[in-house]
Amino acid sequence: MSDAANSGHGLLGILGGMGPMAGAAFAARLVALTPAERDQDHVPTLLCNDPRVPDRSLARLGQGEDPLNAMLRGLRLLERAGASLIAIPCNTAHLWYDQLAASTRVPLLHIVEAVCDDLRRLGVWGRVGLMGTPATLKLGLYQQPLLQRGFEVIVPDDAGLAQCVDAIAAVKGNRPEAAFEPAAACIRALIARGAAAVVLGCTELPLAVPHGRRGEFATALTDSIDALAKAALVRYGRIAAPVGLALAD
Amino acid sequence: MSDAANSGHGLLGILGGMGPMAGAAFAARLVALTPAERDQDHVPTLLCNDPRVPDRSLARLGQGEDPLNAMLRGLRLLERAGASLIAIPCNTAHLWYDQLAASTRVPLLHIVEAVCDDLRRLGVWGRVGLMGTPATLKLGLYQQPLLQRGFEVIVPDDAGLAQCVDAIAAVKGNRPEAAFEPAAACIRALIARGAAAVVLGCTELPLAVPHGRRGEFATALTDSIDALAKAALVRYGRIAAPVGLALAD
Repeated sequence: MSDAANSGHGLLGILGGMGPMAGAAFAARLVALTPAERDQDHVPTLLCNDPRVPDRSLARLGQGEDPLNAMLRGLRLLERAGASLIAIPCNTAHLWYDQLAASTRVPLLHIVEAVCDDLRRLGVWGRVGLMGTPATLKLGLYQQPLLQRGFEVIVPDDAGLAQCVDAIAAVKGNRPEAAFEPAAACIRALIARGAAAVVLGCTELPLAVPHGRRGEFATALTDSIDALAKAALVRYGRIAAPVGLALAD
Repeated sequence: MSDAANSGHGLLGILGGMGPMAGAAFAARLVALTPAERDQDHVPTLLCNDPRVPDRSLARLGQGEDPLNAMLRGLRLLERAGASLIAIPCNTAHLWYDQLAASTRVPLLHIVEAVCDDLRRLGVWGRVGLMGTPATLKLGLYQQPLLQRGFEVIVPDDAGLAQCVDAIAAVKGNRPEAAFEPAAACIRALIARGAAAVVLGCTELPLAVPHGRRGEFATALTDSIDALAKAALVRYGRIAAPVGLALAD
């Protein structure tokens, strides 16, 4: 364990609940991706898995209550409990990243930066397919950061977007086995259009495509849960940072 | 969602970290076992997954630091954050249950009661095989409650106890695939001795025997993670209590 991990860092706060299975899966993948032999080698975490946050995608498309206040309450809870770094395992929530970051002195990881780092880690260049919620795709959460780093971005057509929505709803409704086919159909269509990798840019999507079935696809899948967990583990000195992280500009 | 769940209950606090994968798995199974169609239907939880708690089994066998103070710090954190019910997904930690319960006004679920309830839910009677850490088995955490409820209890022999220890260590060392064979060998030996069910009485053991492989065994396996999650969901009005819960005495 590095000195930084022992002394410089306290609790990793996790603002979860969006959705709750994604929050729990993030906590589990953080443990699984940590080089460790015993309990005491792991990063101490505090997961606020409160699913009462209003739906992020509906709100951003003007169809529902604003989730910002509920997210700020979660941030305050994590701050008061002593979090020294915060991860938010929900892509759509990052449409409020600037307001959340401005409200706290605790550094917040950014899931899009984590995914961009993971694409570099995987050695991916060129055309990248992007999956996510309607709000994440329509409001361009990923497009500009990916373009800045020299990637070309393609997004699903209307049928593919409906498949993303179906897969995400199935995971949120505790029917993960019904989530695979729509997610897989969308992935295959992006690959057919030349994607060198597909970003699972909603934290329900990695739960729709279990790790054991990822080999069925002809390209790399970048998992936003795992990417965010790796970004946290880099900050805690548990794994190495990927090389070649300089921005293309 | 029941009224009780909406009004009477706040956050479910989870005193995790013992080990951290078991804490995260408990949070995930709680979600998976909840009848829900959308994020907002789930129980709000706060998982303190701090793995720096000294080893419970070593301490209880006189070979290591007492974990009580670290567990009390976690309880205080959950209390201050507003937990109205607390679950501890670690069987061995329940050897300190009385001190923990005496230190807080927040009700603590008891994992052994949850497992006993689950045996009734599964319709199990008669001889039950019990797996767990050396401290859990040697100090009789489960034996008296099971006997009081009319069960006969059998425990692993020395070879079986070594298999439990190996399986638990493999899960804690992030090698779950190496945990299955020792756990399975111990289960098979207990079944050969007439066990009508086997209690996975350490929260690493359900992670050693994935849900998809439980059908390989001739008897029911009672999973202490799932049993504790069901006990919480009963308290939140999300699932029905098992029938026939009266004590045998």
